[in-house]
Amino acid sequence: MREGPRSGCPINAAVEALGDRWSLIVLRDIVFGGRRHFRELLANSEEGIASNILSSRLKALVAGGLLTQEDAGRGHRATYSLTEAGIDTVPVMAVLGSWGLRHRETTPELRVRAQLMEDGGPALWADLMDELREIHLGVPRPHPERERASDRLREAYERAVAAEAAAAVH
Amino acid sequence: MREGPRSGCPINAAVEALGDRWSLIVLRDIVFGGRRHFRELLANSEEGIASNILSSRLKALVAGGLLTQEDAGRGHRATYSLTEAGIDTVPVMAVLGSWGLRHRETTPELRVRAQLMEDGGPALWADLMDELREIHLGVPRPHPERERASDRLREAYERAVAAEAAAAVH
Repeated sequence: MREGPRSGCPINAAVEALGDRWSLIVLRDIVFGGRRHFRELLANSEEGIASNILSSRLKALVAGGLLTQEDAGRGHRATYSLTEAGIDTVPVMAVLGSWGLRHRETTPELRVRAQLMEDGGPALWADLMDELREIHLGVPRPHPERERASDRLREAYERAVAAEAAAAVH
Repeated sequence: MREGPRSGCPINAAVEALGDRWSLIVLRDIVFGGRRHFRELLANSEEGIASNILSSRLKALVAGGLLTQEDAGRGHRATYSLTEAGIDTVPVMAVLGSWGLRHRETTPELRVRAQLMEDGGPALWADLMDELREIHLGVPRPHPERERASDRLREAYERAVAAEAAAAVH
């Protein structure tokens, strides 16, 4: 590990914490995939993350204060939780997703979530962050009457997958 | 170079293009520092980027379609220009800067730009992007009557540096 940041620039500070080809992908799977355990993160990885890379990135994210790890004791699976700093990467992922939508070839079922995040804008991001605070930090959602952001994202994703499957049959 | 993206996810696509500890720092210095040449990028680097890393990142950014390189011929310095995809990283840098402001220790004179980008929000980002389109792509600004976003950012930075210098004397 480095002793300190390379400079006092906030962009540099964020890039040092997040600017790795895998760290944000691991966070994405925790935020949008609801995965909390090593095996889930490994087995369901869309990008086929390697076991040793996942292990090192989880350690780095814990060391960097973006995740906490609760050890359930011998023989039990450790659970990873987002910290406030980890939850606050939601806008970063939203704008990264928007950039990817506009400037890279992507697949329809994986586009839909980024598109919904872009269309929903900061209001949807805030709802998702409130929901993550409830799940990961135990802070009740301030607007429990609203449909969960994660449900809206999952429904949109499932519709897109179903549409893809229907299109593949024809 | 990899054959293709690791998945069709827009977040993954953006991270593959930008998610490197140096690529966004190089783009930041082009966007906010107005640097267009290898030597400027090397000599003025706040983070002390190494020559070989700068060279490899510039090549990768050109290959990825975020920069173009105009070679001025033998003995002349090549000039780097942002593409539309490169200019479109402004919101990414803004939200990364906001994250860094909130979750990392940073220095006052380097904080001020990120703070101004956060306070100005999407309207300021759009002005800055219009200005970059003029400089890098030759597209006239749609609102030439407005003060340049880069001037607002530079003035804020210079005020912060002067305040720091005054504070250091006392």
